[in-house]
Amino acid sequence: MGSTCVRIAIDAMGGDHAPNEIVAGALRAREELGVEVLLVGDPQQIESKLPPKTNLAHVEIVTAEEAIAMDEEPLSAIRRKPKASINVAMDLVKKQQADAVVSAGHSGAAMAAALLRLGRLPGIDRPAIGAVFPTMVAGKPVLVLDVGANVDCRPKFLEQFAVMGSIYSQYVLGTPEPKVGLLNIGEEDCKGNDAAVRAHQLLKEKTQITFIGNAEGRDVLSGHFDVIVCDGFVGNVLLKFAEAVGEIMLQIMREELPQGVRGQIGTAILKPNLRRIKQRVDHAEHGGALLLGVGGICIISHGSSQAPSIFNAIRMAKEAVNNQVLQRIQSQYQSVQQESG
Amino acid sequence: MGSTCVRIAIDAMGGDHAPNEIVAGALRAREELGVEVLLVGDPQQIESKLPPKTNLAHVEIVTAEEAIAMDEEPLSAIRRKPKASINVAMDLVKKQQADAVVSAGHSGAAMAAALLRLGRLPGIDRPAIGAVFPTMVAGKPVLVLDVGANVDCRPKFLEQFAVMGSIYSQYVLGTPEPKVGLLNIGEEDCKGNDAAVRAHQLLKEKTQITFIGNAEGRDVLSGHFDVIVCDGFVGNVLLKFAEAVGEIMLQIMREELPQGVRGQIGTAILKPNLRRIKQRVDHAEHGGALLLGVGGICIISHGSSQAPSIFNAIRMAKEAVNNQVLQRIQSQYQSVQQESG
Repeated sequence: MGSTCVRIAIDAMGGDHAPNEIVAGALRAREELGVEVLLVGDPQQIESKLPPKTNLAHVEIVTAEEAIAMDEEPLSAIRRKPKASINVAMDLVKKQQADAVVSAGHSGAAMAAALLRLGRLPGIDRPAIGAVFPTMVAGKPVLVLDVGANVDCRPKFLEQFAVMGSIYSQYVLGTPEPKVGLLNIGEEDCKGNDAAVRAHQLLKEKTQITFIGNAEGRDVLSGHFDVIVCDGFVGNVLLKFAEAVGEIMLQIMREELPQGVRGQIGTAILKPNLRRIKQRVDHAEHGGALLLGVGGICIISHGSSQAPSIFNAIRMAKEAVNNQVLQRIQSQYQSVQQESG
Repeated sequence: MGSTCVRIAIDAMGGDHAPNEIVAGALRAREELGVEVLLVGDPQQIESKLPPKTNLAHVEIVTAEEAIAMDEEPLSAIRRKPKASINVAMDLVKKQQADAVVSAGHSGAAMAAALLRLGRLPGIDRPAIGAVFPTMVAGKPVLVLDVGANVDCRPKFLEQFAVMGSIYSQYVLGTPEPKVGLLNIGEEDCKGNDAAVRAHQLLKEKTQITFIGNAEGRDVLSGHFDVIVCDGFVGNVLLKFAEAVGEIMLQIMREELPQGVRGQIGTAILKPNLRRIKQRVDHAEHGGALLLGVGGICIISHGSSQAPSIFNAIRMAKEAVNNQVLQRIQSQYQSVQQESG
């Protein structure tokens, strides 16, 4: 395990473009990132998507007889279908045959499978889904969590998100001393609903993180914060809004820029610059969300993921494994527990 | 009153650029929209901002001896300073000497002043702040409420927001049959926290509005919804995020487009097209937020408002007065009350 050759279990049946795009992204990651990929799902379907002369070194197909559809109720589906691809992928991590899971399938199902198969880390009440947003400072992303696992959050949960998020930001995103913010409706300590006021107080007292105060909606992408904690309701709304807004901006540009003769000429000349803008804005460039607080590295990609997103998600998984995120959360969280307990 | 000459009381002392930009926006509105403006504040300061040969027809200066600073606690400041410009402006509406109030000052203070001076409309538990967002469909805005007045919302409040928002959308924004959505984290009826599930049920049963279901973050700007209701916490985060995102997109374009020789040439050629993009994205083009559920028309502009925003806010106020929004909410809300009671 570790830096020799990271093994990633990939839910080949999950997502709108499964298995085609999932397999394509996995093969590219195997090639370019030097990881070993375990494609979990229906062998016939997966094999039919492999290009004719695929070199099968570092590719393994693991049979899973079922899959979970996007419209199934996650918890009952996970229980009813033990042989579903996402369950089989989680089991590979549990049995230490893989180091991480990547899935673009039903995110609720992935969360449920992770909880049931891998369990929570000791000291963590609720796992959180973290999403990495690009900010207006190029190369300086912000990690927002929770973006959908917990619709109601007690202040204590937000405090745990802050600890886990800081570790991820420091060891995977490479932020020396991650600045943590609490998503809120004003800068002042007393702002927000009751849960926000109490969470602010808890975060302020937490010496293991660098809490710099409330972050308003306008601050999320400013680059001043490295980690922003919030409940899964507002985080989910924000994530989906942000993803859509990037697409909308690109569409407005596509509509307005080529208008008129000048527009057509100018747009043709600017093609490479426009491509750079797309890269900075497009959420597909930024991989997937990560599940923090469960006993394994799990990356949950967008349901609409195509090969580039899967590739980026696998890259994230590899980074998390190589940088021992799990072990660091575990040990640091345990020390946090001891100090605060 | 009414369509003869609408009289707008303007808090000349409120906002980061008061009184200069406020006065400038008001004078332009007087000129171009044919409204009468009552500039409320320190007469000396206001007069010094009037251009030398200002025609003083349809401009009145109303003395207010105090002002409320952005960092004051709103409710106590409103009570402690009865002669503050925002209080005096509200009183003008109460005494029917003005038809509406526009303020770019402390939004909490404007809300408190409206509540204390004008009161709530009968049948409304909590007034809401509504904000008009542009959508990806040009010319088809969406009204989101509440964006900050109520950090915790009972399902009943959300139902009232839906009724008020539908009326505003229909009679001011000109939507024939406004489609209402509930901001939530999934499309299914059962999604979200407890408050969201119960609000969904209430909205579904409400025959006076056209409720089409949950709106996810990605749907806010899609143009499929005309009115979206949410609690003031998530609404405020979303509003501030959306405002910032527009600015960030424009900045990324300013950074990336002119890079290199091709970039400089292409950007120069595209100048008019880029201006159109700015207009579609910039929140200053879209006026202010409106306070729905109090006994008067109140438009709350952004604290950073400059003359164009103030002009647009005054235009919104004029539309709301001419289209009898207040009377329609009152009468329709009373009929709603009777039917449901």
